[in-house]
Amino acid sequence: MSANMKQKAVKTAKTATTYTLKTAKGMRDYEPHQLAVRERVFGIINDCFKRHGALQIDTPVCELKETLTGKYGEDSKLIYDLADQGGEQLALRYDLTVPFARYLAQNKITTMKRYQIAKVYRRDNPSITKGRFREFYQCDFDIAGAYDPMLPDVECLKIINHREILDGMFEICGVPNNMFKTICSAIDKLDKMSWDEVKKEMTVEKGLPEAVADRIGEFVQLNGSTELIDRMLAEELGTNNKSKQGLEAIKLLFKYCDIFKLMDCVRFDLSLARGLDYYTGVIYETVLTQEEVECGSIAAGGRYDGLVSLLADTPKWQVPCVGVSIGIERILAIMEKQLEDKNYYPTQVLIASIGKGMTEERMKLLVELWESDIKAEHSFKNNAKLLTQFQYCETKGIPYVIIIGEDEVNKGVVKLRNIVTRDEVKDPFV
Amino acid sequence: MSANMKQKAVKTAKTATTYTLKTAKGMRDYEPHQLAVRERVFGIINDCFKRHGALQIDTPVCELKETLTGKYGEDSKLIYDLADQGGEQLALRYDLTVPFARYLAQNKITTMKRYQIAKVYRRDNPSITKGRFREFYQCDFDIAGAYDPMLPDVECLKIINHREILDGMFEICGVPNNMFKTICSAIDKLDKMSWDEVKKEMTVEKGLPEAVADRIGEFVQLNGSTELIDRMLAEELGTNNKSKQGLEAIKLLFKYCDIFKLMDCVRFDLSLARGLDYYTGVIYETVLTQEEVECGSIAAGGRYDGLVSLLADTPKWQVPCVGVSIGIERILAIMEKQLEDKNYYPTQVLIASIGKGMTEERMKLLVELWESDIKAEHSFKNNAKLLTQFQYCETKGIPYVIIIGEDEVNKGVVKLRNIVTRDEVKDPFV
Repeated sequence: MSANMKQKAVKTAKTATTYTLKTAKGMRDYEPHQLAVRERVFGIINDCFKRHGALQIDTPVCELKETLTGKYGEDSKLIYDLADQGGEQLALRYDLTVPFARYLAQNKITTMKRYQIAKVYRRDNPSITKGRFREFYQCDFDIAGAYDPMLPDVECLKIINHREILDGMFEICGVPNNMFKTICSAIDKLDKMSWDEVKKEMTVEKGLPEAVADRIGEFVQLNGSTELIDRMLAEELGTNNKSKQGLEAIKLLFKYCDIFKLMDCVRFDLSLARGLDYYTGVIYETVLTQEEVECGSIAAGGRYDGLVSLLADTPKWQVPCVGVSIGIERILAIMEKQLEDKNYYPTQVLIASIGKGMTEERMKLLVELWESDIKAEHSFKNNAKLLTQFQYCETKGIPYVIIIGEDEVNKGVVKLRNIVTRDEVKDPFV
Repeated sequence: MSANMKQKAVKTAKTATTYTLKTAKGMRDYEPHQLAVRERVFGIINDCFKRHGALQIDTPVCELKETLTGKYGEDSKLIYDLADQGGEQLALRYDLTVPFARYLAQNKITTMKRYQIAKVYRRDNPSITKGRFREFYQCDFDIAGAYDPMLPDVECLKIINHREILDGMFEICGVPNNMFKTICSAIDKLDKMSWDEVKKEMTVEKGLPEAVADRIGEFVQLNGSTELIDRMLAEELGTNNKSKQGLEAIKLLFKYCDIFKLMDCVRFDLSLARGLDYYTGVIYETVLTQEEVECGSIAAGGRYDGLVSLLADTPKWQVPCVGVSIGIERILAIMEKQLEDKNYYPTQVLIASIGKGMTEERMKLLVELWESDIKAEHSFKNNAKLLTQFQYCETKGIPYVIIIGEDEVNKGVVKLRNIVTRDEVKDPFV
C-alpha cells in the first residue's frame, strides 16, 4: 500500500467530493519555531553577504520553461512545469543560479555581487527523515564580472575541484568526449553511493570500458592540499593542457585561501564532480565535519562562465560568474530540534481580569501597552475564568500577567505578576 | 501589435532554438533598492503582528488543486495550475487564507493567532503602471478560534461591512437566493467601475430585474458611522433577521473601535462586498486617504467561519476565523520611488592599492576588516588604477577608502580617506 493510498480521504459535510487533507508531496508547512530559527539564521547569512558588499535581488518563482531547458543535465526531469492555460510555458525555478544568469543577460549587467535567499523546487524523491524536500530554501552568493584569476572565486569557498582538471583527467583516462557530462554526473554520486556502484553505472548502464573506469577510480580517491597539487602537476595530469591549467588555477586559489585563513578547512578532492552542466572552472562543496552532526554537503558552487552568454540575446555577450549556494535546510533541521522546546512565543504580558463586564477595561489597557510597543494580549472571551487566563500564560510561556478587577479600575491601578515566581512586581517592568 | 510580440526573440550563439529573454508575464525581478524597502517595511509589519502575540507560519507555494477548488467564486479561473507530470494535481496558492484554513484543519488546531508574509499567484490581467502583478506579496494576520463577538474582529481592522447585512439587503431588494454570490461579486467591482456599469453587469449579463438592481443601488450609496447603523436598524434593514443581526454586530464592533481609538479611520459602507465566497460575517477594506497617494485598497479581510470545516476531514469540525490581508505592493511601489536615488549599497570601505603586486596585501587587510564585522571590498583586478578604484566608491556610494602602497606596507600603516570630503581620517573610524 503506497503512502498516498494510506492518506485519509473522507467526505466533507458540505460537498460530495472525496477530499485529501494534506500538503503537496514532499512539501511542508514551516511551523512557528522553525521560522524563529530561520529568521535568526537568515539574518546571520544576510549580514555575512552584506559584509562582502553583496546586493540582494529576488526573482519570480516561475521562469519561462525555455530559460530552464538544457541547463541541468540529467536533473532536468526534476523540473516542475506549470499547466498550459494559454500564454507562456512556465516552470518553477530549480535553483537560483539560472534565474540570476537570466537577470544579468536581460538587464545587460556585466558586474555584480548579488545574493538571494529563496525557495527552489525539485520533483525529487523526497525523504522527510533525511530532510530532503521538494520545496526548500537556498542561499546563493554569486559574483559576476570579468576579473583576475581566482580573486572572486576565493570569496565563495571550501572543498575544491576544477572542471578543467576533471576534463583533463577524463582525456587521460580515455573517456570519449561526448561522455564527459554523463560520467561527471556518475562521479557526482560518490557521496551517496560506493565506488563499485558508481563504476557499475559507468560501465553497465553507460557503456564505458571497464579499464577506463578503473583508471578514473584511481584518480577520484585522491584528495589533499598544496603538496597533492604539486605532485599532480609533476605527474600525468601535468602533461594534459586542460588539467595543467586547472591545477595551476587551484594552486593560486590555495595561496589566496591561505591569506584568508581558510587552509584548515579547504581540501582539493578529485572526486568532486557536480552533476550540473553549467560549471566551467573551479567547483566546490562544503561539508560539515563536526562529528555530532552528520549532514553531508551543505553548500556547493563553482564557476559558470558560459551560462549568461547562453541566455543572452546579444551575440557573443559574455559575463563570467562564480558563486556558492548554501542548502540551508539540513543545518536548520538540526537547529530546529534544539529550539523545539524553547520559548518562541512573542507575547510579553497578558491582560487578565476578575469578575464580569471587564472586557472594555482590558481593551483600554491593551491600547496603552501596544502604543508603548509592548507585546500584549487579552482573552477573546468576555468572562474568562482567572485560572484559565493564568493557564494560557503558562502554556504559551508568557512571562507577565496584568490583573484588573472592579477594585483596580476604581482606584485606577493594576496588579502586575511574574507568572513563574507568582510574585507581584512593584516596579513597572518596562 | 501586442506587448508580447514586441519582445525580442533572437537566436543565441550556441543553440538553434528561438529564445525569449524575459521574466514570466506579469512577474518581475525585485531590484536591490526594492528589497531594501521591503526588508524595512516587512520588519515593521512583523513587529506589529508580534505585538499582538501572533506566530508566524509559512505554507508551501503549491497546494493540492482540490484544496483551492470552489473557494474563490468567479476568481477561480485565475489560479495557476501545475502540469500533470504524474502524481498529485497541484496549483500555486491564490491567497494565504485557504492555505491557513488547510493548515488548521490538517493539524486539528482550534485556536491560533498567525501571520504570514509571502507571495501569491493570480493569472489576472497585469498592469505594471498600476502596480498590478501576477506574483505579489501579501501580509496576512488571522485569528482562529471560537470567541465572544467582535473581540478578535476588532484586532484586524478598518472600513467595514458585514456579509449578513448584504444578505439581508439582497433579500429585502428581492435578489433570488442563488444569485447572492454573483451579485456580491458585481458590487465588489464598484471601486473600479461606475454604478451604471455594475448595474449593467447585474441586469444585462446576469439577468437581475432592473427594479431590483435599482433598490440595491440606493443601499450601496450609503456609508457612515454609528448614526447610520442606528438609522438602518430603525428602518427596513432592521426588519430583516439577517441584516438586523449584522447591523448589531457592526454596532458592537464600532464600540470596540472607539476603545482602540480607531473611530477616525473606520467607516461603515454598504457597497463593500468582497467577491470571495468564503466570508461569513464582518468584511473590511483599508483605503489610503492621504491625498498625495492614490493607491486604492491596500488591505482587506473579514470573517470566514465555514472555511476550515469545508476543508476538515472530521465531520462537523468547526474553527471560526477572522483575518486581514495587507496587499503591500502598492504602498511599497510608492516608497521604492522615494528610495530609488538614495544609498542602499552596503559596503562601508574599499581597500584600494597603488602600484603593482599589492593584491595579497589588500586581501590581508580585508580579512581583518571582515573579522571586525566591517563591510569591506577590494577590486578583483590585480592592478586596477587608483582612479578606477575611487570611481567605484563614488558610483556605489561607498563612504570610505583605505589606500595602501609599498610605502604603507613597509611601515605597517594604512591611509583612510573620506570619499566625499577627500580628507584623510586620522582616527580609526570604528
